[in-house]
Amino acid sequence: MTVEVLNIGTELLLGSVQNTHAAWIARQIFPLGLRLARQTTVPDGPAIRDGVLEACGRAEVLFVTGGLGPTTDDITREVIAELLGRKLQPDPAIRAHIESRLAARGYQLVERMLRQTMVPEGAEVLPNPNGTAPGLYIPSVSQPSWATPHFFLMPGPPRELQPMFSDFVLPRLSTLAAGIEAKECRIYRVVGLGESAVEKLIGLELTENPALEVGYCARPNEVDFRLIGARETLDAVEPRVIQILGSNLVSAQGEGIEEWIVGELKRRGLTLTTAESCTGGLLADRVTDVPGASEVFHEGFVTYSNKAKSELLGVSADLIERHGAVSAEVAMAMAEGAKHGAQANFALSLTGIAGPGGGSAEKPVGLVHIALARPAAETLLLERCYPADRATFKQLATQAALDLLRRELLGF
Amino acid sequence: MTVEVLNIGTELLLGSVQNTHAAWIARQIFPLGLRLARQTTVPDGPAIRDGVLEACGRAEVLFVTGGLGPTTDDITREVIAELLGRKLQPDPAIRAHIESRLAARGYQLVERMLRQTMVPEGAEVLPNPNGTAPGLYIPSVSQPSWATPHFFLMPGPPRELQPMFSDFVLPRLSTLAAGIEAKECRIYRVVGLGESAVEKLIGLELTENPALEVGYCARPNEVDFRLIGARETLDAVEPRVIQILGSNLVSAQGEGIEEWIVGELKRRGLTLTTAESCTGGLLADRVTDVPGASEVFHEGFVTYSNKAKSELLGVSADLIERHGAVSAEVAMAMAEGAKHGAQANFALSLTGIAGPGGGSAEKPVGLVHIALARPAAETLLLERCYPADRATFKQLATQAALDLLRRELLGF
Repeated sequence: MTVEVLNIGTELLLGSVQNTHAAWIARQIFPLGLRLARQTTVPDGPAIRDGVLEACGRAEVLFVTGGLGPTTDDITREVIAELLGRKLQPDPAIRAHIESRLAARGYQLVERMLRQTMVPEGAEVLPNPNGTAPGLYIPSVSQPSWATPHFFLMPGPPRELQPMFSDFVLPRLSTLAAGIEAKECRIYRVVGLGESAVEKLIGLELTENPALEVGYCARPNEVDFRLIGARETLDAVEPRVIQILGSNLVSAQGEGIEEWIVGELKRRGLTLTTAESCTGGLLADRVTDVPGASEVFHEGFVTYSNKAKSELLGVSADLIERHGAVSAEVAMAMAEGAKHGAQANFALSLTGIAGPGGGSAEKPVGLVHIALARPAAETLLLERCYPADRATFKQLATQAALDLLRRELLGF
Repeated sequence: MTVEVLNIGTELLLGSVQNTHAAWIARQIFPLGLRLARQTTVPDGPAIRDGVLEACGRAEVLFVTGGLGPTTDDITREVIAELLGRKLQPDPAIRAHIESRLAARGYQLVERMLRQTMVPEGAEVLPNPNGTAPGLYIPSVSQPSWATPHFFLMPGPPRELQPMFSDFVLPRLSTLAAGIEAKECRIYRVVGLGESAVEKLIGLELTENPALEVGYCARPNEVDFRLIGARETLDAVEPRVIQILGSNLVSAQGEGIEEWIVGELKRRGLTLTTAESCTGGLLADRVTDVPGASEVFHEGFVTYSNKAKSELLGVSADLIERHGAVSAEVAMAMAEGAKHGAQANFALSLTGIAGPGGGSAEKPVGLVHIALARPAAETLLLERCYPADRATFKQLATQAALDLLRRELLGF
């Protein structure tokens, strides 16, 4: 069954908004044995018509996102109704939903919102508990020589689309996909090896297995090794994958490094704290993105200034003066001070130069010192240089810090 | 000039990786007067050929991303060379670059990396200082009745693509786009109003101005109002936009709320600290994403546990016992404790229930109490409920906190 996504929105093609729909939808449909064959973004306006028409020639299921809102540039509903030759009619239930939603917030109904109550003939309304614009399902129409896809029209904002997809699209899709053999996709996250090194390790044994589909994806300080196949095939080869990748494998369950760490600390009843200078809270943020992180992470410190390093972490002003705030010595004192202050088992610290300013010949932009204070053992130190934009630097530095802790926990 | 992006990668259509290229490239080319007419993602394999062929019928410039790496699923180079009828030849300079790059890291050359040294006849090599795979520029070939687009082939990882684009693609593109009238895109970020309310305020005066292109984009707790036009036109209408949007407008310069706040605090010589429970460091992370944040943000507290709230912020155990950790009283004590501890002018605190667990009938998942401690005035309090996934909750809660501070600074 050929499935495509058509994303509508001038803002997506101007780059002012990141398109997250295709990736999210892809993950939802995979367990049904479905994959996206293509994803296309077109701007608001006449290009919607081209995008829909072309997809009609290829797709059996077409997810259309965006362009259902109340403003004048939202014309998806109208374009598709016209293409399919369906009349649009107002739906009183949608109007009631919009009115009650607005009333709860003390807003008034604005005339132009009524466009959102219009439904093409033969379409099913997909409720939107998180917004005003409902979704629409227009089932496929088949003739001997042609067929339209099953259309699912959904609103653009992810927090509206996602619950709608889970609650109202997936059940209909399950029915359409009945009988399709579901495959599994397992992702093995590897930290500490480059992409070609991973492929070389994996070797022909898996790559040439016709029952497996193999893929790689490199991200900052991380390579995903991907296997797709029937569950039994994957179960059979997994022990070998684990053996080959060894300690570079974060987890055979596809967990991210944060999830693995939180799970492992929880399992062992251990705690972690963080002391961040250059990464400004991102490390704590990544750890606390994991549900249940509060069991292992009780507090963290964002110590940007020297004064904060001294007052909150007990780093001596003299040490900072002698070695500079960006130094292995200060990283070590930060980690040890945080561990002591938070009475945690482990403390990760980072001090570095995120840029764009503040670098020197001796200490360039991108330099970061990382320390890991541990129970009953000397503090570990790591020095790295990631000359990159500020956000990438913060991502790479926190990734290196998390991997330092991960490897420690593996050997601990 | 019709410009398209073709993103290649099975991982993008499996959803294991977020496609950020189209948005990023779109922002880079806009100042040249260019916009993306379409963006398409196809999986590795034969679909690359379809994607390229179809784009050839429409595009004058085609950016192709991904599939240039060393692994066996990276076949973009080969497919495009074959389509254009060009032979691939090894380039010794690329080989030298790969070898020196590997040597610097203590890695060995893996045989399969040599595929990356192959260059189609007539192509220019675009150097990749941040990876092994070079980019390729294949100029347009014109015949009386057909023409190929200008092809720019670039590697998939953003930290390789982005510097290559800036340094080697943009200069060539500038030449190709010479003579195209550049327009400006101004984005007005609005906090505190819904999308239809913004459109209603803006009204026909701007929407029906034929020299302006108007757009809206709703994001969590934020609406972008977008105007595209000639610089003089935009300059002429901007005072009216500022007047209409009033205090709901974050900034007429398109700044995000974090940027505006850091800039404003800096300008006035004021400082901010943060005390976060449920948002676990995201607020500090957002503030410190702004270059130069260190001038106004010296330290922040991530106090997940009750003990940390007491020890680091001086919130009394009795107060937590009486009202619960998620309460206006505790939010207020956290903000005041953080302001005092960090000797900052302002302190923002958040305590809430990020979920998925931990909610009750009285205090549901999504509830958050926000407090802003201020100089010489009583602490402000805000209560919100954002029942959403954990990451969205954190985003919405920090946005509300930042907007509380923003409005305070406006009136301050």
